[in-house]
Amino acid sequence: MKATSYKPGQVIFKNGDPADGLYIVSDGQVGLYFPTNMSANQPDITLEKPAIFGEMGVIDNQLRMATARAFTDVTVIFVSRKEFEQRLEGADMVVRGVLGILSERLRDMQRKKIKNS
Amino acid sequence: MKATSYKPGQVIFKNGDPADGLYIVSDGQVGLYFPTNMSANQPDITLEKPAIFGEMGVIDNQLRMATARAFTDVTVIFVSRKEFEQRLEGADMVVRGVLGILSERLRDMQRKKIKNS
Repeated sequence: MKATSYKPGQVIFKNGDPADGLYIVSDGQVGLYFPTNMSANQPDITLEKPAIFGEMGVIDNQLRMATARAFTDVTVIFVSRKEFEQRLEGADMVVRGVLGILSERLRDMQRKKIKNS
Repeated sequence: MKATSYKPGQVIFKNGDPADGLYIVSDGQVGLYFPTNMSANQPDITLEKPAIFGEMGVIDNQLRMATARAFTDVTVIFVSRKEFEQRLEGADMVVRGVLGILSERLRDMQRKKIKNS
């Protein structure tokens, strides 16, 4: 885990970037901007401590689906994909199993949503 | 955790029952029947070891949304809600956080799906 600070407006990751880890908001507000968002000023979602973001790319091994930018002065904690996988390996069998099911189901639902839209 | 065996056709839980825990298939096949399924013979989903089922009710604190019946001779391991919560409390902070996000997102998507259908 590694803490990094960003100034308002600074990009944490961009839509389309490879997903190399997930982030935990430690201080300040992070804005998430979906590709459909044409306003660079108003985020679609604002996250505060202790929110986690960027986890779907790690679970799914997909590219980032949104852009994350510091909305205020922020500090975020980065957990690399490798570190997350190690934490998962060390986790309780039942907890790990349930996490696996939930992410699978989420993937299915998102696939269907994309299909139907 | 408690292992229980069921004979083919025996009900493990019924649609509408309170969700007091989750199950892990240890041996044999379990059939899940959604309320829309009028045929008592053909399950909507068949599960084998090491599948987990009945976890949504535990996470969501909702009633069972399907009926689970032994399809063959089966042995399942029951993990009570309380035990699952204890396992979760003992889990790594990041893993627990990600599990929390996934279940929240799944709830949201299911709510929207119900709204739109």
